[in-house]
Amino acid sequence: MLIASLIERKRDGGRLSPAEWTELIARYTAGDVPDYQMSALLMAVLFRGLHSTELDALADSLLRSGDNLHFDGLASPVVDKHSTGGVGDKTSLILVPLVAACGVAIPMMSGRGLGHTGGTVDKLEAIPGFRTDLSLRDVERQVRELGCAMLRQTPEICPADGRLYALRDVTATVESIPLIAASIMSKKLAEGLTGLVLDVKTGSGAFLPEMDRALELAKTMIGLGESRGCPTVVLLTAMDRPLGRALGNALEVEETILALEGKGPPDLMEVTLALADEMLVLARVAPDHAAARRLLEKTLASGAALDMFGRLIEAQGGDRRIVDDPSLLPQAGAVEVYRAPATGTVSQVEPRQVGRAITELGGGRRTLEDVIDPSVGFVITAKPGDRVTAGEPIASIFARDKAGIETGTRALGQAIVIGEAADPLRLISHRVTSRGVEVLS
Amino acid sequence: MLIASLIERKRDGGRLSPAEWTELIARYTAGDVPDYQMSALLMAVLFRGLHSTELDALADSLLRSGDNLHFDGLASPVVDKHSTGGVGDKTSLILVPLVAACGVAIPMMSGRGLGHTGGTVDKLEAIPGFRTDLSLRDVERQVRELGCAMLRQTPEICPADGRLYALRDVTATVESIPLIAASIMSKKLAEGLTGLVLDVKTGSGAFLPEMDRALELAKTMIGLGESRGCPTVVLLTAMDRPLGRALGNALEVEETILALEGKGPPDLMEVTLALADEMLVLARVAPDHAAARRLLEKTLASGAALDMFGRLIEAQGGDRRIVDDPSLLPQAGAVEVYRAPATGTVSQVEPRQVGRAITELGGGRRTLEDVIDPSVGFVITAKPGDRVTAGEPIASIFARDKAGIETGTRALGQAIVIGEAADPLRLISHRVTSRGVEVLS
Repeated sequence: MLIASLIERKRDGGRLSPAEWTELIARYTAGDVPDYQMSALLMAVLFRGLHSTELDALADSLLRSGDNLHFDGLASPVVDKHSTGGVGDKTSLILVPLVAACGVAIPMMSGRGLGHTGGTVDKLEAIPGFRTDLSLRDVERQVRELGCAMLRQTPEICPADGRLYALRDVTATVESIPLIAASIMSKKLAEGLTGLVLDVKTGSGAFLPEMDRALELAKTMIGLGESRGCPTVVLLTAMDRPLGRALGNALEVEETILALEGKGPPDLMEVTLALADEMLVLARVAPDHAAARRLLEKTLASGAALDMFGRLIEAQGGDRRIVDDPSLLPQAGAVEVYRAPATGTVSQVEPRQVGRAITELGGGRRTLEDVIDPSVGFVITAKPGDRVTAGEPIASIFARDKAGIETGTRALGQAIVIGEAADPLRLISHRVTSRGVEVLS
Repeated sequence: MLIASLIERKRDGGRLSPAEWTELIARYTAGDVPDYQMSALLMAVLFRGLHSTELDALADSLLRSGDNLHFDGLASPVVDKHSTGGVGDKTSLILVPLVAACGVAIPMMSGRGLGHTGGTVDKLEAIPGFRTDLSLRDVERQVRELGCAMLRQTPEICPADGRLYALRDVTATVESIPLIAASIMSKKLAEGLTGLVLDVKTGSGAFLPEMDRALELAKTMIGLGESRGCPTVVLLTAMDRPLGRALGNALEVEETILALEGKGPPDLMEVTLALADEMLVLARVAPDHAAARRLLEKTLASGAALDMFGRLIEAQGGDRRIVDDPSLLPQAGAVEVYRAPATGTVSQVEPRQVGRAITELGGGRRTLEDVIDPSVGFVITAKPGDRVTAGEPIASIFARDKAGIETGTRALGQAIVIGEAADPLRLISHRVTSRGVEVLS
């Protein structure tokens, strides 16, 4: 197999055979294909796309490059959720204990924040003592005993994807729908799932801002899941503004606790419950969506969901007392209220600017090696469409020191636009399944 | 400078600034930019092209990455010729002594054969003892003393281009017009020329078979040359069949000697004289094309051109006796006549197939490390449009042994198509200068 001629064929719009993809990924994983050939091929794929036979072969090759989770003999259904990433998105932290408390097993593998988006692993690690570096055998044991586990990506699962992703990140080849789909789905399919719910973000703060590309990604991932025996449902949700109010790792854990008490901000609760609802129906622990909603509300109201969060924290070495006393979470050195600079309608809360501002405050990474400060961030109570009066408190800034407060104030001055009107995206705009696309209204 | 964001900008159709190209190439040459980022960028360039400001900056950066030839104080004009490569193209071997004998200095740097095309350096090295690894100071001295020198590419000139070209070769990023133009012109501009003639091949055996892309390449190279004070003329010539009759390194040297005696095949003489004519006019040793032709014919007829070839060979360590006794060139172990398998019109002599067959016989390289046998190849006397009768000799096969003869026979059976009619390209179809395109008829 001459790699240069494979690249040439893809460059010119042709297809690689499944056997060629399989050999290519196997040889790349073995270190026999240099990165400079793979990155040229990835760029050609970005321009030319992948035929469905190529996508299948790529996803299967990534999947086969490592180990899988095994839940043979487990009575509970095993379901997971994945999001394409956003700002303020702490739904995973809420969903995992909530859905597990409803009798569904969840082995959730998540990423760290990078770029302007936060990462579930960083949020979990804001909890003192919380360990996310579980082995696959640890995960299997904990899921059997407790019903859930939350871990960081491990090289045991899809190591070829790990290498490819690192290469894509530095060669501007991330934004390819088939490459994103193969990367996400290979890792999720390695979790041994009965079903999968995906949250594809749209709008200015999403990796794929355009609705049509988000829908294409949704359909591509559903195709990969369903054809491998994993029923898959996608919700398209708005990321043209942050989700919820709390933005920053420890602050988002605190909002998670509120949400598990049923008192989270409305937008956060709506998205979380919609995703959880789909998970329960896929898992068949609820016969329909109405029954699923009732079960979720009962589980929140009874305190069972919050209790499960405490047990999850304890099982993974964290300090479960934070559930009752969030002041045990890392606290910012300086806090200041941010007031509306003018009277009018909040027309925008720009998520990319907010996400980058968290990084500037020390709460996000510029490179994977950066050490972050979990305490910093924002609580933004104003949402697009809200009427505000000049001088009214609309956010709080949590920083290391006075200089950070200034940075944060400047950033909010840019990110929160007060004007005449707002035209935010619908919070949950589409529901996509193997049967088609439902436009929600 | 974040390389990934440069790649992203080019990928999305934007431009890099001249300063960015300059820094990028400097850092790549210094080893500070990894090949995997450069290859992704090159693939993005292949899809998106380069704006003229980017092309200028790239060519200048390549040029500045190494040393130049200097001919200050030399009375003779310094002119060179470059071809985009073909099968049977030995025009350089004929032109250099012919034009030098007319009083023009020529420091010609050439490549080796790769893919289906032959290389001038391989042809020269078929001459026993001939050395092509001259230093730039050797070249300057020899050009001042003799009037010409022929050398292989040296890392002293455009080392950044050398690294880039090696990377492009294995990442399917060769076929980009701006990258080809920058690569060729940076090396030629480093030769300190008064003028440059380019032979851009078209047709099935050319790197860019399509006429419109060949014209685009021609205009791009002329733009680069003229704006740097190097008047540049391009002829588009046919490579839908081999040029001349002899194909293979030693065989082509033998045909060169015939041509320098004025007895070469008509197509080879026509292309060579047209290119030489342009060189003499650019060099101003002839006031117009008619005068140039007269000077060339006189120089061939007097034996001065052939004598210059002998002196060139001697100057570079070769055995100049081959000029009078071509049997001193490497001789094939087995020779056999190839006869027309049917009666009809030769409709095709497919140059790619012939070129690949030479490689199969051991006369070309699969990788740059291969050692080649200079003696093997073909002499094909039939040209597209010729009427042939079944059983009539139309070629000779030169091979190492009996097995090679069989390989060669099979290859000619595929490459030479006998049918009803032929529709070959016009041998010299266009003349392109800074003033425009002349379609020749």
